[in-house]
Amino acid sequence: MRVLALLDGTLADPDEPLIRIDDLGLVRGDGVFETILVVDGRPRELEPHLDRLDRSAAMLDLPAPDRAAFGRAIDRVLGAWTGGREFALKLVHTRGVEGGDGTPTGFALGVEVPPKAVAQRADGLAAVTLERGVEPGLAERAPWLLLGAKTLSYAVNMAALREAERRGASEVVFTTSDGSVLEGPTSTLIAVRGRRLTTPPATLGILPGTTQAALFRAAERAGWAVEVAPVAVDELYDADGVLLVSSVRRITRVHTLDGKTLPDSRDLHARLVELYESEY
Amino acid sequence: MRVLALLDGTLADPDEPLIRIDDLGLVRGDGVFETILVVDGRPRELEPHLDRLDRSAAMLDLPAPDRAAFGRAIDRVLGAWTGGREFALKLVHTRGVEGGDGTPTGFALGVEVPPKAVAQRADGLAAVTLERGVEPGLAERAPWLLLGAKTLSYAVNMAALREAERRGASEVVFTTSDGSVLEGPTSTLIAVRGRRLTTPPATLGILPGTTQAALFRAAERAGWAVEVAPVAVDELYDADGVLLVSSVRRITRVHTLDGKTLPDSRDLHARLVELYESEY
Repeated sequence: MRVLALLDGTLADPDEPLIRIDDLGLVRGDGVFETILVVDGRPRELEPHLDRLDRSAAMLDLPAPDRAAFGRAIDRVLGAWTGGREFALKLVHTRGVEGGDGTPTGFALGVEVPPKAVAQRADGLAAVTLERGVEPGLAERAPWLLLGAKTLSYAVNMAALREAERRGASEVVFTTSDGSVLEGPTSTLIAVRGRRLTTPPATLGILPGTTQAALFRAAERAGWAVEVAPVAVDELYDADGVLLVSSVRRITRVHTLDGKTLPDSRDLHARLVELYESEY
Repeated sequence: MRVLALLDGTLADPDEPLIRIDDLGLVRGDGVFETILVVDGRPRELEPHLDRLDRSAAMLDLPAPDRAAFGRAIDRVLGAWTGGREFALKLVHTRGVEGGDGTPTGFALGVEVPPKAVAQRADGLAAVTLERGVEPGLAERAPWLLLGAKTLSYAVNMAALREAERRGASEVVFTTSDGSVLEGPTSTLIAVRGRRLTTPPATLGILPGTTQAALFRAAERAGWAVEVAPVAVDELYDADGVLLVSSVRRITRVHTLDGKTLPDSRDLHARLVELYESEY
């Protein structure tokens, strides 16, 4: 099932056309979004997601999302959802129509979690490394490149996932040309070694992960070491575990990277899933 | 005025919602487009534009645009236009709705040429150089980055134009970090020295320009030398002329770059406009 709420608090039919052809979200990819996991009626990490939506909007010089209106729309979706125990809640905020009065377009949409994501949580996945064309220092030097903003301009992220499929994998680890790890197209990377979790710094021009932050919070409380530090691609091959985490896929282990089988991380993964779930 | 035609050949009201909220063009910037200048009812460089739409679609693994349907939609717009002598004709082709049957979304929209573009044709413009984060060789090495495809994921191009405005300019010349010239966010750069026109090669990961190609065709016939070759940013400051060209702005001279006044190119510009117009 799908539930769509508009920012005026009304429910609408997602199968009906609701967006104008001159919406800048459509013709320029000029907008931002978030995807939030809802379990048993409770959105996970709602405030961090809304905060990140604000930050992305600010990076694009968009009007700040109307938090009261988004809150109302989210409540409408939560109230109307009669599908499975969990669903994905997408928030979209665009620059509105071209030449208009500057009113943003926004909505909240609840959809079922894709079966593929559910399967990957249990089975893990194969990933490939793909160069992203982002050098260290670029994000800070060139803010107009919007690195680290969660924008609607995701054609490259989608193309990278198709390239992964062509290579017999289902996910991507973006890298710099000098062999540093960045992130997945729709996920954050975490490398595990012993009882230490490491994720690359957002200053590289990547998205600070809400699920990564939640896992780090839980792991730290349980006595694990957590660090935000550069990760070299080569370090992934002999790490105890390589995770791609995101709201919808939760904590997913990479079992194969660029065709090479990684060390078995099933027990480690189970322990980390348990830690992550203990947050909710 | 605005005239909108759908791919079934019907006219529609561009002020009415026509796009679903789950169109991948909207939520992923996953689609391609072209903008064509129409003068006295005749689209300029129509075939090169349609060919480029095909190439962009292929780079995104999109279904090929239905050329008969787009041709019909274009004819409907041309037939219904009752505005000024010239207008901009936009073609949009998206991946369609998420989880749908793969049918692309497409339309043709005629809109007035923005007054700003008309003014820039006569007055020239001030531009700033901004780094694009694209190194030589990247486009060929990493096709998933879609460099040189005209996609709907244009948030960065729009952000660069806002950065130019913050710096007191109205346009951008994208550069590599090693000081090579790429293109404008919605235009092609041409440097003029004596009777030689130079534009950077598409292999750098930039869009091959339809207006640049038309001007080169005309200039070559008139005995000018034309070349596709790397251009260093430093060469722009003492060039006889620096042009940003695009379908809608036609041939526009840059009079100021990064706050420095460039050599006066008004006569040169007038001569090149004359050459370009001789093509039609």
